Amino acid sequence: MPAEKISSLQNPRVKQLVRLRDRRPRDEAGVFLVEGYREIRRALEKSVGLGELYFAPEWFLGENEPALITRAQAAGTQVFELSKEAFAKVAYRERPDGLLAVAPQWNRKLEELTLSPVPFLLVVEAIEKPGNLGTILRGADAAGVDAVIVCDPVTDIFNPNVVRASTGVLFSVPVVVAESTAVRTWLREKSIRAVATTPVATALYTETDWRGPLALVMGSEQYGLSEFWLKASDAQVRIPMAGQADSLNVAMATIITLFEAVRQRNG
Amino acid sequence: MPAEKISSLQNPRVKQLVRLRDRRPRDEAGVFLVEGYREIRRALEKSVGLGELYFAPEWFLGENEPALITRAQAAGTQVFELSKEAFAKVAYRERPDGLLAVAPQWNRKLEELTLSPVPFLLVVEAIEKPGNLGTILRGADAAGVDAVIVCDPVTDIFNPNVVRASTGVLFSVPVVVAESTAVRTWLREKSIRAVATTPVATALYTETDWRGPLALVMGSEQYGLSEFWLKASDAQVRIPMAGQADSLNVAMATIITLFEAVRQRNG
Repeated sequence: MPAEKISSLQNPRVKQLVRLRDRRPRDEAGVFLVEGYREIRRALEKSVGLGELYFAPEWFLGENEPALITRAQAAGTQVFELSKEAFAKVAYRERPDGLLAVAPQWNRKLEELTLSPVPFLLVVEAIEKPGNLGTILRGADAAGVDAVIVCDPVTDIFNPNVVRASTGVLFSVPVVVAESTAVRTWLREKSIRAVATTPVATALYTETDWRGPLALVMGSEQYGLSEFWLKASDAQVRIPMAGQADSLNVAMATIITLFEAVRQRNG
Repeated sequence: MPAEKISSLQNPRVKQLVRLRDRRPRDEAGVFLVEGYREIRRALEKSVGLGELYFAPEWFLGENEPALITRAQAAGTQVFELSKEAFAKVAYRERPDGLLAVAPQWNRKLEELTLSPVPFLLVVEAIEKPGNLGTILRGADAAGVDAVIVCDPVTDIFNPNVVRASTGVLFSVPVVVAESTAVRTWLREKSIRAVATTPVATALYTETDWRGPLALVMGSEQYGLSEFWLKASDAQVRIPMAGQADSLNVAMATIITLFEAVRQRNG
């Protein structure tokens, strides 16, 4: 795997990689960072065209890295070898594994989604923490939703911490960013029932019917669901809480509810 | 709230607080760190006798901190005011909120647990990541288990990141550390059924009976359940996975399973 070598911390590519941690430079360049073996492997498995791959053998944790680099090269990715120090500068993880790629952003539209015969969707509103959004994507992938619709996002879905917390699932579960009003209209056109989980509901989440065309709607960490979605949802349910009022965070609540839906839909 | 003021980074108390991030000094002193408003409030609510409380007003995020400090003083806690720099040194969080306490460790025994008439327990084996253990404690609290039994721990339950990820739930849900063999014997004596969640099971987790005296048993992140617990459990179940094989981590799998148990036990 012959590759250009970069050791200067002042190299323009090194500087650009650091800049890409911030949203504006990411959006301007139309790309985002994918760090780590597992995440990059998933991108390649899903035929994501990685523009560039940077590696630093001194940080490798295993023995499979060269094969991954070769695979990326074969797929048309430009590869660059970084010195240990240069990689330390561009890595955003505390414990880098010597692999960092640049992937193109996408802008998938609601209309472009492929729905299963009985649609199953997750709608999340204004999630604030990248780690929560990434964890929610993992849960949504495990539950087998058709897509995750991110309404009025506070967190950029291409934030490095979303990619990390999702462990690369961002590449396998379809994610659409859209405005709440457009999502509500689209759900109604498709006759998809919207069920919202909110602590103010009277019905338990186990008491509603999760079969049929369905969208689970979850609110933000701090503010919960907006008035808009409380009104726009067809049913509202809550999770019974035995302990401290805030024991469950939004990611945990989403996963509990998604898997109750899976249980009913499979049953 | 008159309090001794500390500004030297060389002050012995400052140095000791830094040392308490590591297990050996923690165990030697028989104490652990509790950082943050919410966590310290929960400790006080549960009448945990905090030995010391350190605060730095320049880091406060809200207006309720003085009342919390007064409450701790009234409960017999020694309080110390730190300079901004000294607090930055002792804080282990990236964004400190100016409050750090020292709490006594406990060593609760299986025999000391108070069980409900139909016992409901969570047993976790050799969990590696403090963040996962803390998240699991939150889920266990929300599900209303009688206790969490931590077998053969790899992670110290008094690790600062367990306290943080548990958001202080460590103080409200009873936690016992014990050896697997002792736990199995104790469960059998109490006629408590042990159900293990493992990817190798054939039955789905929704297909077993979670009512009656019950212990859910979960394995470690990397290795799953040990042979010991696979043999020692009365039933084995798995969670159906639609997406990537490792989409669910151990904390998410625990929470999904706990809430299926809650559903059946309430139904």
